[in-house]
Amino acid sequence: MKTVVWQSLSDNQQESLLQRPAITEGANITAIVSDVIADVRQRGDDALLDLTEKFDNIRPETIKVGPDEVDAAAARLSGKMKQALQQAYDNIATFHKAQEQKTLRVETQPGVVCEQVTRPINSVGLYIPGGSAPLPSTVLMLGVPAQIAGCRQAVLCSPPPIADEILYVAKLCGITDIYNAGGAQAVAAMAYGTESVAKVDKIFGPGNAFVTEAKRQVSNDFRGSAIDMPAGPSEVLVIADTTADPDFIAADLLSQAEHGPDSQVVLVTPEPSIADRVADAIQRQLAELPRADIARQALGSSLLIVADSLTQCISISNHYGPEHLIVQTRNPRKLVPLLDNAGSIFLGDWSPESVGDYASGTNHVLPTYGYTRTYSSLGLADFTKRMTVQELSADGLQQLAPTVVTIAEAEGLDAHKRAVTIRMDKLQARQAALTATKEA
Amino acid sequence: MKTVVWQSLSDNQQESLLQRPAITEGANITAIVSDVIADVRQRGDDALLDLTEKFDNIRPETIKVGPDEVDAAAARLSGKMKQALQQAYDNIATFHKAQEQKTLRVETQPGVVCEQVTRPINSVGLYIPGGSAPLPSTVLMLGVPAQIAGCRQAVLCSPPPIADEILYVAKLCGITDIYNAGGAQAVAAMAYGTESVAKVDKIFGPGNAFVTEAKRQVSNDFRGSAIDMPAGPSEVLVIADTTADPDFIAADLLSQAEHGPDSQVVLVTPEPSIADRVADAIQRQLAELPRADIARQALGSSLLIVADSLTQCISISNHYGPEHLIVQTRNPRKLVPLLDNAGSIFLGDWSPESVGDYASGTNHVLPTYGYTRTYSSLGLADFTKRMTVQELSADGLQQLAPTVVTIAEAEGLDAHKRAVTIRMDKLQARQAALTATKEA
Repeated sequence: MKTVVWQSLSDNQQESLLQRPAITEGANITAIVSDVIADVRQRGDDALLDLTEKFDNIRPETIKVGPDEVDAAAARLSGKMKQALQQAYDNIATFHKAQEQKTLRVETQPGVVCEQVTRPINSVGLYIPGGSAPLPSTVLMLGVPAQIAGCRQAVLCSPPPIADEILYVAKLCGITDIYNAGGAQAVAAMAYGTESVAKVDKIFGPGNAFVTEAKRQVSNDFRGSAIDMPAGPSEVLVIADTTADPDFIAADLLSQAEHGPDSQVVLVTPEPSIADRVADAIQRQLAELPRADIARQALGSSLLIVADSLTQCISISNHYGPEHLIVQTRNPRKLVPLLDNAGSIFLGDWSPESVGDYASGTNHVLPTYGYTRTYSSLGLADFTKRMTVQELSADGLQQLAPTVVTIAEAEGLDAHKRAVTIRMDKLQARQAALTATKEA
Repeated sequence: MKTVVWQSLSDNQQESLLQRPAITEGANITAIVSDVIADVRQRGDDALLDLTEKFDNIRPETIKVGPDEVDAAAARLSGKMKQALQQAYDNIATFHKAQEQKTLRVETQPGVVCEQVTRPINSVGLYIPGGSAPLPSTVLMLGVPAQIAGCRQAVLCSPPPIADEILYVAKLCGITDIYNAGGAQAVAAMAYGTESVAKVDKIFGPGNAFVTEAKRQVSNDFRGSAIDMPAGPSEVLVIADTTADPDFIAADLLSQAEHGPDSQVVLVTPEPSIADRVADAIQRQLAELPRADIARQALGSSLLIVADSLTQCISISNHYGPEHLIVQTRNPRKLVPLLDNAGSIFLGDWSPESVGDYASGTNHVLPTYGYTRTYSSLGLADFTKRMTVQELSADGLQQLAPTVVTIAEAEGLDAHKRAVTIRMDKLQARQAALTATKEA
């Protein structure tokens, strides 16, 4: 791990130190994914089965996972596992339920009522990666908000064989449309539909380079599907002062590093001694880790930055914009108003990133790769959309008419003006008729 | 205009009737825009000036518009115009201010506190089209939420010469970074920065095919910029029953049709007589319109649909998902809970679309082209991002630890588990030491 003293660097060096490595996927992945999508659009289920056999080395008997298989999976799980998943489910549900938006109603001027209402996105597709270890936690992070938002249909795709934990959590989340499909072909199936897989409006979830590229391609096609957010390697940045425990920091950095060789791991501290002690603790703890090889690769590109002050630490973090930001300082709560551009923030000694990854209640699907500047931590809002509603009374329109007419004239949009004046003319005619009737 | 009876169509015919025409931009636009972006990235301001001269036939003396020019523009405007723009500003500000999100704080279980906080996006770029008529209303729709959100920097680009109304509204919204630049070159300047134009985090606003393609390209590059939403031709769908005034409906359809030849205009009604009378009224009103040529082209592809019932009208609208939805029925308010997939909804006789376009308070930047299924009406949320914060007490972590450990084991992520267990071990050691001290 590289230790650098921030103040010793030039502006350019500082800037390039915090630059993320470019992801060079190559035209290769783009072309492969484009072919996969075309194949699924043309041949549907047949393509899905063939591609699953080709890429995942397994040809499932059925694309859809039946309810019996889901029940069997639940029966195989230990009580302890079910209890853990249930507690995680409960906390995530509590936090996401609190995000529900009430209808907003504002009378901007007398007789002019404007509203903002939310509706669930009708159908959503949840992509759950497979591979060496199953990720039931990702099912929770996508399935719980979809359920609370009230999405009418939730489709889950994961490469076969799908782990028992994933099937169990899917059931907790009320998901019955579960498919043996992974990779770009699963994304294509959800974006365009096949005989078995329903076309969805929006696709969520992490994945490898092929899945990411497939999500990008289908989201660039208006007949395809929207997606949750752009993807990138996972990251953590820790801000720590002398009160922090180097063992805790090392454990947090390592739990990020074990995600993959491209994980980004950064410590920023005003204390040179903390940097040294964390480096030592990492070496000690690394020796005991099963995934030490992966972690070691990630640590190769990681950084221990010694800053001048806590204020400078914060400014470095805000500039970098980490996915996960852990703050282990004397009074971390006090720093929150100063923190910006982070996916999720973990305060104090007792808030390791892994609690947020699994069970505290917050979502672990977060913007990364610098997208924290503009994208949000995944939440209930991503499973809904906001519409506006307006209703004017005749009086309200009459009051607002001169304004609308004047601006429409400035913009040279005569029909816009006439949509107002034709109403005003009729209103005046009606009022005149009423007056005439009264006088008669 | 084509009148069709919904029930007389097969399922396939119904489906294809509501399909939007594909926008075939051609490789041509993609390549031109890609060259423009590369040029601006390489040559900065020089490229911006050259391209403005090439595409807009004008070479501005300066790229930045100075405060003197803004003041001079204000001085040239009539009092009536200023008053209209001010009233629109006030209503839009009132509605968007009401959208502010308070910090959400939830204790999901004892000692586990989860929060959702919002932060303004630091810097935003507002693209305002030029051309035959200036669009000060678009400055309001982008500038007001940027101001209320508290974005630190707002950059406005518009092709020169910039209309007085646009400069005046920019000043109302507190925008001082105004640039004489339009088209793809303006988008490139905001996405990557030049000597004069600051790089922004997110670009908002409508534009022609080149602007749309430039926004797409810069948003696909992680070193570029996020964008508001995908663009498409503007649309209106009107649901009307016998109580509706055909003249009002015709005026509303025409105010959409005059936007451009590719505007989509649809009437859905359970009453054949309404369809006939609206068609007549359109012909009458069309004769008086200055932009009749444009409107006539748009009407060529527009639809009058006769449905079986009001329920069927709603289902057609929900399937089509219009940008603007006007409901002129006996009790439109009653229908709102049934309406879905619309950008903005206008209720009753006195709520023409043009009030929402300008001055009622709602935003006129809306998802279109079917994106209403997943995208929201532009609002304050688009100028902010949500971060989560969590803070656990030692007791809170102790309670949650078994859950995190169990799930981490299932996912094979040992370092995730250890980030928890190392804390538990130290906590127990401290507690033991404390007990020993007391006993001594």
